[in-house]
Parts: sequence; C-alpha cells; structure tokens
Amino acid sequence: MSIDTARVLAISGGIGGAKLALGLQRVLPPGDLAVLVNTGDDFRHLGLLVCPDLDTVTYTLAGVANTETGWGRRGETWNFIEELARLGGETWFRLGDRDLVVHVERTRRLAAGESLTAVTEDLRRRFRVPSTLLPMSDDAVSTTLDTEAGTLQFQDYFVRRRCEPLVRAVHYAGADVAAPSPAVLALLASAPLECVVVCPSNPYLSIGPILGVPGLRRALEACRAPIVVVSPVIGGRAVKGPTVKLMRELGVEVSPRSIARHYAGLVDGLVLDTVDAALAPTVGVPALVVPTLMQTLEDREQLARAALSFARTLAPSQRSRRARA
Amino acid sequence: MSIDTARVLAISGGIGGAKLALGLQRVLPPGDLAVLVNTGDDFRHLGLLVCPDLDTVTYTLAGVANTETGWGRRGETWNFIEELARLGGETWFRLGDRDLVVHVERTRRLAAGESLTAVTEDLRRRFRVPSTLLPMSDDAVSTTLDTEAGTLQFQDYFVRRRCEPLVRAVHYAGADVAAPSPAVLALLASAPLECVVVCPSNPYLSIGPILGVPGLRRALEACRAPIVVVSPVIGGRAVKGPTVKLMRELGVEVSPRSIARHYAGLVDGLVLDTVDAALAPTVGVPALVVPTLMQTLEDREQLARAALSFARTLAPSQRSRRARA
Repeated sequence: MSIDTARVLAISGGIGGAKLALGLQRVLPPGDLAVLVNTGDDFRHLGLLVCPDLDTVTYTLAGVANTETGWGRRGETWNFIEELARLGGETWFRLGDRDLVVHVERTRRLAAGESLTAVTEDLRRRFRVPSTLLPMSDDAVSTTLDTEAGTLQFQDYFVRRRCEPLVRAVHYAGADVAAPSPAVLALLASAPLECVVVCPSNPYLSIGPILGVPGLRRALEACRAPIVVVSPVIGGRAVKGPTVKLMRELGVEVSPRSIARHYAGLVDGLVLDTVDAALAPTVGVPALVVPTLMQTLEDREQLARAALSFARTLAPSQRSRRARA
Repeated sequence: MSIDTARVLAISGGIGGAKLALGLQRVLPPGDLAVLVNTGDDFRHLGLLVCPDLDTVTYTLAGVANTETGWGRRGETWNFIEELARLGGETWFRLGDRDLVVHVERTRRLAAGESLTAVTEDLRRRFRVPSTLLPMSDDAVSTTLDTEAGTLQFQDYFVRRRCEPLVRAVHYAGADVAAPSPAVLALLASAPLECVVVCPSNPYLSIGPILGVPGLRRALEACRAPIVVVSPVIGGRAVKGPTVKLMRELGVEVSPRSIARHYAGLVDGLVLDTVDAALAPTVGVPALVVPTLMQTLEDREQLARAALSFARTLAPSQRSRRARA
C-alpha cells in the first residue's frame, strides 16, 4: 500500500484508539487505511526509545496485541525484566522479551540516521500490518503534566504514578517546533482521502499532542475531507484511562459537548453513544448516535462502518470550505 | 573487596581463561583475586555494546554461566532472539533474554558517561562476584584479523564465520592509543600483589589485545610479582577454540615452547601439561608440569593451587629485577 492511495485517515493514541483503528482496518479494503499516531508518550527507557502508542497500534493491527492488558504482546514472556529486577534495574515500565525487539531495533536504526517514519513503515511491513502507520512527527514531542506532585513526564504520570496526581495543565514540549510528518501532510492534501476519523482516544493526552504541532493542526483545518470525531466519553464516563478524571481536574464538563468544543474548528461530525442521545442536539455539529462501546471485534467493525457512513453524509467539509473561503 | 588488597591478578579472555579464574576464586580467600579481562572482542550489536569476555568471566565467577555452550547464561530463554528472527533482524550472534539485561544496562550507563570499569564493578557487585573484574581499558580496542576472506572483526571471524577463514595476521585496532586501566596499573604496582597468572586463553586473540596496550605491557614488565603463564596448548592441541589452527596459520610451532616465546620478557614461569613433560627443559623459563586439562571443578581448583604454589617459588621476579636494573 502507498500513502497516496489511503482513503481514510484515523487519528489515534493507544488502547481505545487502536480498537477503532482495527475496526476500520477490518471493514476497509487493504491499503485504504492510514493511521496517524501520537508520539507525545514516547520516551527513553533503559537507553531505548519506547513509542507506546505506535507499538500498541502496530500490535493491535497486526493481531499480536495483548487485549487483556491493553498494551504489549499476547503470549509475552518476562525473563528480561525479571532478570533486570534481580539486578536492581528500573522495572516500573514492563518490557516483555518479544516487545523488546521493537525498542532495540527502533533505537538502533534511529541512531543510524533513519527517521521514525521510515522505521515505523518498516516495522509495519515486518508485522504484516496492511494499513499505513504514520508517527505525527519525526521530531521529539514530550507530553508533560503540571500536577500537584510537580511537573511529570507522561509515562511517569501514566504508568509509574497510575494517573493519581491531580493535574493542573498539560503541555506538549517540543510540539510548537516539531516538523509535521511530511507523509501526513501529503495524505491530508491528497485527492483520494475521503474522511478523517478521530478515534475515541484521550483528547488531551493522545490527540492533544498531535494538534499541538502547528503544521498538523493547520493541515487538518485545511483538509477537504470531513473530520469525524468519536467521543471517548460515554454517559459521563470514559471506557478506559484517565480521561474523565483529567477532564474534572481541568474543570471541563464531562460530556460529549466538551469533546465537540475541544475539537472546534476541526470537527465536522461527532459520533456519540446511545446513552448520550439526549445531548446530540446540543453538541453544535452534526451528530451520529450509535453504540460506541467496543467490547467485541464485531463492536469495532460496527462502529467503524457507522463512522465511515456518517462521514460520507458530511462530505465535502463545510469547515474546510470556510477555511478556504 | 578493594583492588588494593588483591593478592593475585589473573589475566583472562573468555571460556578457557574463566575456568582457571573460577578455580583461583575458589581456592583464594574472598577479595584476594582480581581478573584483568580482554575487551578486544567487544563490539556493537543491535546498537548495544557487547563485551563477550567480561560477560563470560562475570557469569562464570557468579556461577550462572552456561557451562555446556561456554558462553551465555545457564537456564537461558530465547524469546527475544526468536522474535527478532521472525522480524528479519540479525540473529547470528545469539542474545538470550537474561543475558540481554547486561548489554542494555551497560550500553545505557556508558552512554550516560560512566566508564566501562565502573559499570563492570557495579555488575560484578550485583552478580555477587567476590573477585574484582577489571576491563583492560576504558577505551575501545578492536581485534581484527587479516584473512583470506579479507579483514574481519573478531566476532565476524569467531562467531559468524566459525573461525574458518585462514588468518594471515592479527591486529588490535586502537590498542596503541588506548589508556591502560588505571585500576590495573595501581594493582600491578601495589605491595600486596603476590603473583600474576596468565590463564590458558588464546595468546593471540585473548591475551594479545591486553599486551597490545603499551602502558599495560610496560606495567606488566615492571611488575615486581612473578608472572606465571598456563599453557593453552596441551600435547599439540588446544582444549577449545581456534588456538592451534591460528598458530599453524601464523607459522608458529604448536608447542608450549611457542607460548613461552610469545610471552618472552613477561613470563617468569610456565605451567605445562604432563603430556608435554619432555618439553619442560626446552621452554627457557622455570616450568611446572601438572595436569592442566580442566574438566571438573576439582580440576580447576587443583590447577589454581598448583599455579599459585609455583608462583611462590619464583618470587620475587628475576624479570622484574632485570627491568629495574
């Protein structure tokens, strides 16, 4: 597959986003999907560059993800990390024996001068993922949180401290000077692109870093294809992760309304769950009300189909016409 | 244990040398042994710095070595390398899941500015090795071989090509400008040092790189303590590895005589096997004739005791008195 022929661009963080990306991959012809992935979570660990969202999306789309933990590989072994523990090393971030291959190979190749985009494309190919995977930038962006416990790097907050500290603000260090992925820019401007689907990932921690890269935000604003956002908030709760806790701490109403507001200027249509049907007229953009909880593979495919059909009713983007006018 | 209190310095490469080092460690009081280890085999693999001889000596003295293969850990698992193979990575150099911890930790700490000596000392401590382990230099030295198949790096010759290409010459790239380990220099000049034992490692590939560092060679020449060499050649054969093949290709007689000649100016006494008893009067230095084949743990201890007793008969070094005169 080539980027130029992708017809759908999904924008995703890790777990929740990867679920819908898998649904999209399964209902689209091979090569029709590209996934723009958050790299704000990336960090150096044990000297290795770990890209948690890229890995989760790769593993999920390759069918080798651990669906119980939501991260890492299925059928993983832990001999490396157990030995590291025995030798007194840092073990708060669990690296499985098989998972480790990706971090070692990626680190080696980046050190040899390859771009993250090139390494990601090669890993995708080796994992036989039929969709294009695009890191948001080849430059480092680091999501950091101002918390009651001080300023924390994302993984420190998310994994080591289990999202416990109260968050006052979220920053994307380096985003303002990061060059947007040229492949993403090309795709957003390409004729075959039919729609963009923002997966139900955390708007602040997973999609925020992507929109924090000015060139990417501008390219999305200017994109002809309609942008559909799938709300990660269902009935005042988030399916997984710290979305709701974070919204409360940031003083944001926990509702699909806030999601629509968060993506103002970008969103052409919002997909919200049936439990939030009453809120549909209040979100300020066209809304699709369908079950959005993805528990089975069928759930993912059904939500993917619904989002794609919904997007077709929205094209061409009013937003984009406004931006071009 | 502190370097200053070590009474015996063993000089070792990997497998064969580590065997005698273990024997010495077992018959000496804890802390009495220091081991000077070859780093000419060290190389970058998958972006990680691998130090095969340091690892073999560490694992052997820690009691966690795989005694069947002669390298790596006992009870090792191979999930990392199998996954790497599946993804099309380089797998000719086998890295076990537990073994990998040492390479990752070492690489990370060297990148953070620690010296190889400091990292080796810390790993020794974590593996509860009661002897001091001293890399020959903190600078990179790379053993390379001129062969019929071109110039080869050591691991390329030794592991990937199984020592098959005919060797014309051996070089120690970087040795001439490498700074000798300050800890080794201090030990060689220290009062408590009673003897130096050159283990039955390959004289060209394992001990050669050490003697190739000018400052180390001079310090050994000037050392007051007697230097005992244990011949790696037994009855015209080597116990393991390419020693004999290499001696033939370099045009050297396969005999303990050549070993004594190789160490001329350094050796105060040679330990040779009972099968070579007839050669004892011809080696040009005091000789001890004992069984030198180390098959059991008892063999190692017995050879260690014999070498130490032999050294005591030689002290103080005639060689050193000459060097000082």
